[in-house]
Order: sequence, then structure tokens, then C-alpha cells
Amino acid sequence: MNCKQILQQKAMEIEFYLQKALPEKQTYPSALFEAMRYSLFAGGKRLRPVLLLCACEMIGGEKEKAIPFACAIEMIHTYSLIHDDLPAMDNDDYRRGKLTSHKKFGEDMAILAGDALLHHAFETMTQACVKDCSVATIKAMHAIAHGAGVYGMLSGQVVDVLSQGNAIDEKTMYFIHKNKTAAMLQAALKAGVLLGGATEQQAKIMEEAGEKIGVAFQIADDILDVTSTLEVLGKPVHSDEKNEKNTYVTMYGVEASQKMVEAFSQEAVCLLKTFGKEADFLIELTRYLITRKY
Amino acid sequence: MNCKQILQQKAMEIEFYLQKALPEKQTYPSALFEAMRYSLFAGGKRLRPVLLLCACEMIGGEKEKAIPFACAIEMIHTYSLIHDDLPAMDNDDYRRGKLTSHKKFGEDMAILAGDALLHHAFETMTQACVKDCSVATIKAMHAIAHGAGVYGMLSGQVVDVLSQGNAIDEKTMYFIHKNKTAAMLQAALKAGVLLGGATEQQAKIMEEAGEKIGVAFQIADDILDVTSTLEVLGKPVHSDEKNEKNTYVTMYGVEASQKMVEAFSQEAVCLLKTFGKEADFLIELTRYLITRKY
Repeated sequence: MNCKQILQQKAMEIEFYLQKALPEKQTYPSALFEAMRYSLFAGGKRLRPVLLLCACEMIGGEKEKAIPFACAIEMIHTYSLIHDDLPAMDNDDYRRGKLTSHKKFGEDMAILAGDALLHHAFETMTQACVKDCSVATIKAMHAIAHGAGVYGMLSGQVVDVLSQGNAIDEKTMYFIHKNKTAAMLQAALKAGVLLGGATEQQAKIMEEAGEKIGVAFQIADDILDVTSTLEVLGKPVHSDEKNEKNTYVTMYGVEASQKMVEAFSQEAVCLLKTFGKEADFLIELTRYLITRKY
Repeated sequence: MNCKQILQQKAMEIEFYLQKALPEKQTYPSALFEAMRYSLFAGGKRLRPVLLLCACEMIGGEKEKAIPFACAIEMIHTYSLIHDDLPAMDNDDYRRGKLTSHKKFGEDMAILAGDALLHHAFETMTQACVKDCSVATIKAMHAIAHGAGVYGMLSGQVVDVLSQGNAIDEKTMYFIHKNKTAAMLQAALKAGVLLGGATEQQAKIMEEAGEKIGVAFQIADDILDVTSTLEVLGKPVHSDEKNEKNTYVTMYGVEASQKMVEAFSQEAVCLLKTFGKEADFLIELTRYLITRKY
């Protein structure tokens, strides 16, 4: 199997565990669980949970232990997309070819479904920590809480919202990419190795690699927005220009951005190589993520 | 000191710890931390954190251990108010005499400030659990996650939103009060005794007492909405009628509702008495909360 196939296979596994992690649609109040499920099962790539599981397995950890945390990180990612799409934010009507949550269920339910996924992510993780009360599980949960919170993803989203339509400098741009996108990929990798039994030093290296992978991944995404087509990408292209979004491409152009992707990913690969042969799949995955065409 | 004075004194203590628990206004991105602080320091009664600390002290626990959890529960309460006030929800312009978050900072920042407080509550608790990794701290965090989440406060809010303007039955009304209001008071009391070293059995009793106190507290609130005045209550009265809210008062009238408050609080007091003399202050507090005039 090639990297893409393995990624798809692992994504299907995550799908199965996510189904079990969320209450049934019929549970009262059913409108809530229907809205949570609608967005959570809208066809995401499951990149963050896959990275978490791969990092855990790389270091010799048990997958079973990592599953609640993998599910939680995908719930947090999904909540962030629901709130990003709201009329007061990006005001998007479609995501992955489906109506966005507020278009489907109304704005009140979309806000609540987003809140609910964030709540349920933490309930899922704390439940796992009650069952297996160890320093490793607590630290993994903390890595995810920190990566998602006011020093991570959330602050990136705030600066992105505040910057829209304004010219920004390189430092601010890096802040947005590092926090809005990279922080959760970092958290996935760090939590994964912690659950697998990593030392503090190993977790630190993984965190650094995650930052590089995350920023490279986001720049690659910005490039695809101008070089790809609707058919290949599966979503409208040139949306950054239309939304007056600041990206590496609007700042430096495609060619220079491509070089940055290569530089960041090369740094990530160097860091991953310190884990030896076991890191081969994560290295391959990194290369795949930043050279992908969609 | 009487009960009200002790409550005020403890609230001031919480104020001090909350100031330290949140990043400074100047921290980047400052717009985020300003919005978080604006709502968190808008003059709340700090009832939930006070209950948590009192429950912890009642059972002989150390206050210091409970502080991060007390702060977190107030952050969660504040986030829920910010999102409740949004145009897509209750569309309120004022809370406690101040502009609501979306009126002051715009709808996008209000959504994000609410999200941020929820994130930061969990970051604060996981940080405390990393420092003191014990079954008690994890269980306390789980009690709060559960009370706030899709089986607690959040589900109450969903049913409340879905019920507005429609006639509902007694069961649904109890569900709303039990979840939207009581679940977080329950969580505060349960987490407090767990942090103080309670047994499972003691935590269970506290959870039951919390449900009774919470429902009684909410019915008392509904009664004040029709019997009090703007001057005494500090907020507009008759707002439930105006917003077509279903309450015990609209369903049973003031007199019958008052009897229910007495019955629920009596049950709570019986449960609290199983903790002996140490529970005297919590019993007094319970009586104060449901006989208050504002």
C-alpha cells in the first residue's frame, strides 16, 4: 500500500471509533446529536487523529489507549470548522460539498453543535483519563488542550479574523499559520508520542517537527488555492483572493512559497529521523501531505 | 458574618484567583484577552466556584488544590452566558447592566471569546492535573466536563432554545432546569468534595443534593422574575413572559412554585445533613440562595 492508501485505511478506522464516541442520533435531545454527527461525518480526511495514532504506534504504544484522544482531536477540529463557517465569521454556505451547519440547522444550533463537540472532546478525554489515570494520559490531554486553546489554534483564528482585509507582516502571517493550523497537528503528534510512552525530550522534538509540518501543510494549501482547479481540489479555488485572505502566496508568490514548503518539510524530516527507522511512515506521510494535489 | 457576607467575601477571593488564571490584557492577541476579561469580570456572584470551594473545605480538603477548578467552572459559566446572549440565541443587549459581549466587541469576537473561555477552563484544569496527577483531580475534572457537556448544561440549553415559544410538558421543563442550571451547581459540589478526598458514595450524595439545590435555585429565579422589581433585582423583570420562556411560574403559578422550591431545598438539606456539622454552612447557603430577594 502506498501512503495515500494507508492514510485512507486509517481514516476509515477513525470513522468507526468516532461513530462509537458520539451518542446515537436518537439520544435526547436528538436535534443536538444530529447536528453534531452531520458535521463530524461530513467526509473529513481525519488527518489529525491519523497523525496521533501513527505517532503513538511509532514509539511502540498501544493504539487502544490513543483512540479516545484521536477522536477528541477530530471533534475539536470539526467544532472549529463549524464556528469558522458561521455568518459572523467566514459566512460559508458549503463545506466539502455539503451545506454548512448553520445553513442546515440554523445559526443557533450551529453555535451549540460546535460548542457541544468541544465539550464532548474533553468529556471523552477526561473519561479516558479516569479509566487510565497516568501521567502520560494527563500530559497527552494537556498537549491537546494547549494546542487548541488561547495559546494555540484559537489565537490563530482570532488573529486571522482580525487581519482579514488588512495588510499584515510576515511575523503575523507566521503566527496565524503556526497557531490556526500547525498547533493542532503539533498537538496530535505530541499527544500521540506521549501516549506511546515518550520521554519529555522526545515529545519536545515531536512538537517541533509538528510545527514545521503544520506550517508547510498550510502553505501547500495556500498554493493549491491558486494552482489547482475546482474539479481536482473538490472546493472552490481562488477563495483566498476573493476573501482578501493574507497567505504566503499573496505575500511571496507561488515559487517562493513552494521553496518555503520544501525548507519547512526538510526541517521536519530531519527531526523525525532522530526516531530512527520507526519514523519512516511519518516521514513518508509528511512528504505526501505537502506534495499532494488536493 | 452572615451567609450573604461570607458569600461576598469568598466571591472576592475568587476574583483574585481569576485575575491570575487569565492571561494579561496585553498578551497577544490582546483583543481576545480583553474580550475574555470583559465578560469574566462583569460582576458575577461567583456562586459556582464558591460552592466548589465550600464543598472542598467541608470535607476537609485544601483550598489551594481546588482553586484552578473553581476558576475553570466560572470560565465555563461565563462562556455559556456569552453564547446565550448572541443574536442567534437570546439576542440580549445588556447583562448585569453592561453591554453584552457581541454588542461591545462584535459577534465574531463574542463567539471566539466564549470559545476561548471554554478552552481556557480545560487548559487550566489539565494544567492542575499535570501538577497533581491523582485520581481525585481527574475525577473532579471529569465531573465538571460531564456537568457542562452534552449530558449536562449544553443539552439543557439546546432544549431551552428548541422549546422557546412552544408549550412544553412538566418533564421537559424539569429537563431544562436540571441540565441548564442544576448540572453546573451539581458539578461544582461534586468536584469540590472529590478534590477534598470524598468517597464515591459521598460524591454521589453531593451530586444528588446539587440537583435539588440547582432546580430550587432556578425556580426561585423564575419566581423573582415575576415578583421582584428592576431596582431590587438589578435586571429587567417579566423577561420570561416577554421572551415566551416556559418556567415553573408560567406553568404552575407563583404559590405552587414556591412550595416546590421549599420541597426541593428540604430534600437537599436532608442530603447535606449526612455530612454532619461540617455541612452547616452549605445548608445555610442553600437556604439563603432560595429565599434571596435578588
